[in-house]
Amino acid sequence: MTKPFPDPDCWYEHFVSYGETDAMKVLYYAEYLHLFERARSRFIRERGMSYAEVETRGFYLPIREASCRYRAPARYDDRIFIRCGISEWNRASLKFIYEMYDENKAVLHATGMTEHACVNSEGRPVRIPEWLRRMFTGADA
Amino acid sequence: MTKPFPDPDCWYEHFVSYGETDAMKVLYYAEYLHLFERARSRFIRERGMSYAEVETRGFYLPIREASCRYRAPARYDDRIFIRCGISEWNRASLKFIYEMYDENKAVLHATGMTEHACVNSEGRPVRIPEWLRRMFTGADA
Amino acid sequence: MTKPFPDPDCWYEHFVSYGETDAMKVLYYAEYLHLFERARSRFIRERGMSYAEVETRGFYLPIREASCRYRAPARYDDRIFIRCGISEWNRASLKFIYEMYDENKAVLHATGMTEHACVNSEGRPVRIPEWLRRMFTGADA
Amino acid sequence: MTKPFPDPDCWYEHFVSYGETDAMKVLYYAEYLHLFERARSRFIRERGMSYAEVETRGFYLPIREASCRYRAPARYDDRIFIRCGISEWNRASLKFIYEMYDENKAVLHATGMTEHACVNSEGRPVRIPEWLRRMFTGADA
Repeated sequence: MTKPFPDPDCWYEHFVSYGETDAMKVLYYAEYLHLFERARSRFIRERGMSYAEVETRGFYLPIREASCRYRAPARYDDRIFIRCGISEWNRASLKFIYEMYDENKAVLHATGMTEHACVNSEGRPVRIPEWLRRMFTGADA
Repeated sequence: MTKPFPDPDCWYEHFVSYGETDAMKVLYYAEYLHLFERARSRFIRERGMSYAEVETRGFYLPIREASCRYRAPARYDDRIFIRCGISEWNRASLKFIYEMYDENKAVLHATGMTEHACVNSEGRPVRIPEWLRRMFTGADA
Repeated sequence: MTKPFPDPDCWYEHFVSYGETDAMKVLYYAEYLHLFERARSRFIRERGMSYAEVETRGFYLPIREASCRYRAPARYDDRIFIRCGISEWNRASLKFIYEMYDENKAVLHATGMTEHACVNSEGRPVRIPEWLRRMFTGADA
Repeated sequence: MTKPFPDPDCWYEHFVSYGETDAMKVLYYAEYLHLFERARSRFIRERGMSYAEVETRGFYLPIREASCRYRAPARYDDRIFIRCGISEWNRASLKFIYEMYDENKAVLHATGMTEHACVNSEGRPVRIPEWLRRMFTGADA
């Protein structure tokens, strides 16, 4: 049985641009990580704060690990949707997961994840602050 | 006196992502050309056809020249708008121009242009077909 | 005990460019996959054939999965080395692994892998041809 | 009569990667600006200092304008050369020009330029320091 996608989630709409494709006429594999980032930023913005503001408060979420499983290629001008949510919370780290779908949300183009440390402005790992956890989990909504 | 912006025009909304910034903490200069492309695709789509379909009909619009004047840097998470229109029509080429604004459309981040040849599938220059000109100029609307 | 790095291997030298950095002043996480690709192409070229020629012979190696573990950030103008080799052979797939080091090969910036299917021009999985395996493993050298 | 290319100049070798190509199977138009940047960094490094060190001394060279004329497309795995030099010096700005050639330096893929302001750490325009001008023009060599 598949685990249900974490709640809250966020859907990010995107049209594949020419600049994102490669000579195979498909979305280049590194571009998925760019799209994951855009979905993640949207997720945070929908929770009520931009990631830029998180940084202003002295907390940073650098990526420790990223992976992507490519299932079906996306092509130029395809309208796609990237779904994003947080699947794991630890004391000083958290994990985002992603699904990328075609415009009918019928074809699963890819799945992926990014693992983030929580660090201060000196780059030292710190406990994820309670306000951030509450905001990201939608506990305040 | 400034020339008025060509009509029809198109506004493309964008949030500056982390991946588009550089170590100066601003939108990297090559990324403007990516954004111009996205605005251009949106312009064509709003006229009633995707550029992918233009290609399917056997016409291609490769870029012969591009330029950008950088006036005020854009930063991570800035909400910006790229305006786009066609400023020049020739027998076998056309020119798009662009303006990039902040979210209040008060600060002009950049201006730019791309000049496109019209070629067939063998890459040979051909006269711009009448249906394409009518569609892009909104003559059919 | 750590497994030894596969033999043959290949070292790809690179200077981190401005365009590859982000507002954290470090190499952006998606750029590692670009660098893995460059190292992989170099590996193939050093074995005696370019990947472009592999495609001309009707075989393609699309990526099924990619991952990267980020250990220590790289910065603008850093001279880095990406090491690359093949860690796994299957009937219709293979796996490349990567290590990214600083210029003294003392700091390990990152490790990663890409898993490739072997497909024909229609995108159907096919057995990896013997000439390709021999070439990539250096059996002909 | 064509003006001779400025002296000193610098040649930067590059292999076109998959990630730099687009669905037209050619080097994507924004990637030329990335390559210009790499050639420019190489030029500065060959003069005896990295651009990172120029910044450490409190001087920055942000781009005010960039343009590129695309003459002949480059393709995946093409070995190309980007030539770079300074064509213009002003009190508080300078201009780099570029030529991109195939591996035999017989086909001219593109020409381009970038105009740079000289600013201090607050972003205010300042006179180009004498040591920088001497270094970039090779007067100290």
